[in-house]
Order: sequence, then C-alpha cells, then structure tokens
Amino acid sequence: MQGLTIKDLGEFGFIELIRNRFRHHRRSDVVVGIGDDVAVVDVGPFYLLATCDGQVEGVHFLSDRVPPRYSGRRLVAVNASDIAAMGGTPLWALVAMNVPDHTDVSYLEEFYEGIVEGLEKIGASLVGGNCSRTSRDTVFDLFLTGRVEKGRMVTRSGAKPGDLLVVSGTLGRARAGLTLLLRKDAESLQKILEGSSRSGIDDLLKNAILHYYAPEPRMELGRFIGSEGLARAMIDVSDGLLQDTLHICRSSGVDVVIDLESIPVDESCALVAKEVGEDPLEWALTGGEDYELLFATTQKDFKRLFEIFGSVVGLNVIGYFREGSGRVWIRMNDGSEVSAEFFASMGWTHF
Amino acid sequence: MQGLTIKDLGEFGFIELIRNRFRHHRRSDVVVGIGDDVAVVDVGPFYLLATCDGQVEGVHFLSDRVPPRYSGRRLVAVNASDIAAMGGTPLWALVAMNVPDHTDVSYLEEFYEGIVEGLEKIGASLVGGNCSRTSRDTVFDLFLTGRVEKGRMVTRSGAKPGDLLVVSGTLGRARAGLTLLLRKDAESLQKILEGSSRSGIDDLLKNAILHYYAPEPRMELGRFIGSEGLARAMIDVSDGLLQDTLHICRSSGVDVVIDLESIPVDESCALVAKEVGEDPLEWALTGGEDYELLFATTQKDFKRLFEIFGSVVGLNVIGYFREGSGRVWIRMNDGSEVSAEFFASMGWTHF
Repeated sequence: MQGLTIKDLGEFGFIELIRNRFRHHRRSDVVVGIGDDVAVVDVGPFYLLATCDGQVEGVHFLSDRVPPRYSGRRLVAVNASDIAAMGGTPLWALVAMNVPDHTDVSYLEEFYEGIVEGLEKIGASLVGGNCSRTSRDTVFDLFLTGRVEKGRMVTRSGAKPGDLLVVSGTLGRARAGLTLLLRKDAESLQKILEGSSRSGIDDLLKNAILHYYAPEPRMELGRFIGSEGLARAMIDVSDGLLQDTLHICRSSGVDVVIDLESIPVDESCALVAKEVGEDPLEWALTGGEDYELLFATTQKDFKRLFEIFGSVVGLNVIGYFREGSGRVWIRMNDGSEVSAEFFASMGWTHF
Repeated sequence: MQGLTIKDLGEFGFIELIRNRFRHHRRSDVVVGIGDDVAVVDVGPFYLLATCDGQVEGVHFLSDRVPPRYSGRRLVAVNASDIAAMGGTPLWALVAMNVPDHTDVSYLEEFYEGIVEGLEKIGASLVGGNCSRTSRDTVFDLFLTGRVEKGRMVTRSGAKPGDLLVVSGTLGRARAGLTLLLRKDAESLQKILEGSSRSGIDDLLKNAILHYYAPEPRMELGRFIGSEGLARAMIDVSDGLLQDTLHICRSSGVDVVIDLESIPVDESCALVAKEVGEDPLEWALTGGEDYELLFATTQKDFKRLFEIFGSVVGLNVIGYFREGSGRVWIRMNDGSEVSAEFFASMGWTHF
C-alpha cells in the first residue's frame, strides 16, 4: 500500500511537518531556524545567515538549452537573493555536485565557472564542496552564508497595519523568459540571444531569456534596506507575488490589500503572454522566479528609498497592510475587494 | 563527440581541476578553501568550519535494505567526522533533499528523524534546508558547520619526520558490514539485526552492519585532540587507510612507513572476508568508511592520549613519518619496504 507521497503533501506541507516535528530541537545560538528561507545564527560579533537552494536538471534548468555557465550563475543567484531579502551581505559558499558518470567534464567546468562568476559578482567566495555520483539526475545544491549586523536583520514578520507593500523592478519577466525557452527551438533561441538588436522587441525577448537563465538578485537594495533599517518585513519574489505576499502576511499576522492597477507588469511579459494567449497579469502575480524584493515599509522610509533606488531599479507601491489574520486581498478595478484565494478560483480568463 | 567524462577524471582529479582553476578566487577571511574536507573561515572570535557531504540512494545507502532513520544518521555522521578530524565542535546544519514525486512522506519523516537524532547526539541543530524534485534519484546533501578556537585547528598538513602515525578503533568493519548488507537477503539481515545474541559471532556481524548503516564518528577524541593540541595533522578514514594516509603525506610533504603487522583489523572484517574468500588486510587498508581518526603525533602526546582514550576507543601506532616527498611506504613482514603504489599493484592475493 502506497502512503502519502511528497507530491501529495507538497513542499510547503512538508516543511511545515518538519518544523512542527522538531520544534523543540534548537540550540540557544539559533535565532531563526527551520521554515524560513534563511537560517540565522549568533556567532558573536554579528548574525551569520545561512541558506541552501538547489538546481535540478530538467526542473530548474535544461542542459540542452541553457549554457552551463548561466545555470551556475542561476544557482548562486537564487541563494543570494535570499541573503539580500534578509538585508545581508554574502560571505562564502559550498557546492554539492551530484551527477551521473557520463557527465562531460567540460560541461561541469563551465558550470563551476558560472558559480564562481556569480559569487564574485556578489563579493562571496567558493570555499569547498562535494562530488557524488547519481544514476540519472544532475543535482547541484549550493550552501551560501552571509552576515548582517545584529538588530539590522529583516525577516518575513514585522509588517504593521498602515505599512506600504513595495516591490522592486517588474514582474512576469522570468515567466516570459521560461515560456520562450520552452516554446522556441534551439536555433530561434540562439538567434534571439546572439541577434544584434534590430528592434526593441528583440532586446526585450533577449532580456527575458537572460533573466530566466540567470537572474540578478537585488543585492545593493537589500543590503541598503538592511543597514539603514528601511523595511519592517521582506522576502524575495521566488514563489510568485501572491504566494510571497502571503508568507509576509502570515508571519506578520496582518492582512494586505493589493491594488491590481499598480502591479508593474514587465513589457516582455505583456508581449509574450499575449502571443501565446495567456494573461500577463496572471504571470506577474503568480509567475515567480523574478527574484525581486518585496517588502513592508513606512511612507517616510519609502520616500527615502525611492529617491536613491527609484530610478535605478524601479520601486512600486502595490498595496497596503491593515489589521487582520494573515490574508491577502485584491482590490478590483471597480473598487471591490476579493480574497486572493477567491480571486485565483475565479480563473484568470476573467481578466 | 563525447569529451572527457567525470568518470574518466575521477573525484580527486575533478577537485584538483577546480582548485587550480579558481586558485586566486578567495576572500581574505578564508583560512582554508577549496580542496580540503572542511573549509575554514575567520568569523572573529573563532574559526568557523564548514563541510558538505551527501548520500545518494543506490550509491551510499539502499532504501529497500536500510531503515531511513539509519541513512539519516549516516548523513550526519559522515559530515560530523570531518569536523572531528579538524579538532572542532559541530554547531548547526542545513539539509537539501532532492527526491522523486512518488517518495513516501513516512520514509522522509523517518529520514529526518535520523538526521535530527544524529545532530542531537553531536550537540548540533538543524536550522534549515531545501526540497527539490528529481526525476529518479534520491539525493540528500548536508551542510554542517563547526567551531574551533584559533590556533587549535588541525589540518592534513603539519606532520613532521619522527611523528607517529596513529589510528583510532579498528579498520575494515564498515567493509564487512557493507558486504553483509549486499550479500544477505533481507530476511537474514533482519534476523542478524533483531537476533538476541546467541553467540559472539552474531554480535560481531550485527555491529558491523550497524557500523556501516550509521557510523559513530570520534567526536570526543577529535575535540580533545584539537583543544589540547595533541596532533600535528589529522584526517578521518573515509576513503581508506592508504588513501587517507597519502592525503596527510602529500599535504605535509613528508613520507610515512606503515607497519603491516600493527594494522588493527576488525574482528568482523577477519570473519566476513574469510567467509567470502577475500583478504581482511586488504579490506582494512582500503575499505574506507570506518570514520576512525588518523593522525600524526609525537611520542609524548601519544602517551597522554593513550592514557585517556586507549581503553575507550583503542589507539594504535601503525607507522612513523620521515623525510620525503609525500609518499606512503609499506614495511613487509620480512622487514623490506615497498611503496604503497607498488604494493597495491602486486595484487592483494599475495597476502
């Protein structure tokens, strides 16, 4: 008899199970333990941040469509983004490589070049790792540490009624890039990537693909927010805007109202979604993997941040927090409000 | 055209390639970087140790023959042993789980119970991790940190001519356990494991299997050696005695002469090897995975260690270091010396 599988339970369900099961298993120097994107440990002069995230061939990257250097950079980026969302500075990394026997050394060399490139870009260093053999899958796990001054750490909890919900950059670009990656044949992809920009559209598509290949996490913004104490709660947009907003609301014990009209839908997202007959707004709200920063801040702090980063990375107020029990509400174009769950159940074709 | 594969190059060859390639990529706070079993980073008040090692189903453990709780404990043990070999104390861990969709949640729960049990045993804490989906393989990567006081760290380099080569416990037990695991059917295995000890032999076999399932790294010995400064170089026996001795010799730039008669061959190793027509000494010299500590020390420090740990874990002097260029020599029963390479090439059937 087959019992409950990991697919039935889902990733979040499993993390919750593990967190509850080992709730009492914690050393006194652990500040944030199981269940958050980043663990926090007190090492004396500062808080050490530690996160791990992996890339599995066929799930997160495609070895026949994405050059390994990009996949290596992506492996670093998805981890670095978590450090940025805590207001931290990356320090050093270990990488665990699990590959089948027949894997090309030249492929792996380029993959590692991407990892080191990615780490150097964020000021971190590769200090070690491990190699194991698998029967079929190619699995890279990266372990990245960071530091943050005590009292300057930003977690998911801490948003207060009246705070603004702000997101950096634009949303839906990674989803556009992934769609192109999956729908175009290798030759067309190559053309888009190598093409000199004969048109603005070519550039948009190229950027979307590169953004999916190897996103650029918002390291400077995250570090600045952390060091200056300009956000009360923060997360990176990896699961999708609605899902990640929900994480903040639940951890903070407040509700949020998101204003649909203010969502910064990426231009390439609008373009590609329309081309394949899907809703750009859906992609922006649920696509995920854009690795933008999403945070709760006050009007005053937002003004200060906007002056410095507004023109560089783009910062948009997309909602506000209010008293509640951890729910996400959507304000429709007619001014009415629906819960995000109901909104999703209506189906995206309504928009 | 297929190029050089990872199987052609081998694990050590690949690590060497990566180390050489990124030789100049190192932050100033990194004390020991790529290529060692453990990375060492200066965090101010102490050195932080960081290691990662994985367990792949079908390579390191068999899900149909080993209860998941043991495989979880094994995952911790192989990492903790590396921390012990640096003279360190474990702190906290992250675990990256990569499994196919159809994996039973109850299997995973037990696996995590083993991980947490193993961590609690060594005074460490699980603080986070990640879950990813694979198409076929089950891959667990553990990242474990530790601490060691500055100036008390023991690395592979530092052995001096005249030092003794000492190994804890016995050798070949893991190989005996693995052989039983692979050769006995599930029912016989169960019998050995559950059997009340009707004979000393049953106990020996049971211990060998449990030792392979979930080795018990020499944490107290390692920590004591580190804190009291009683070894000049140390490593754990994971690859096999000859291979791990070679790591010390190469890193320290000295030769060693190993005395065959003094190798502490485990009783179960002698028993099982004879049963299957193989040489127990070969298993003890090359079997690996016993996770004993192997170190270079002075006569005086050995005396002190032996008084405290000799009767508890067993400590055997198995050779001595001399001037040289990083080679391992074997002293034969007739007093002659041959290089370990030549010794291996003679084939084990000579003994």
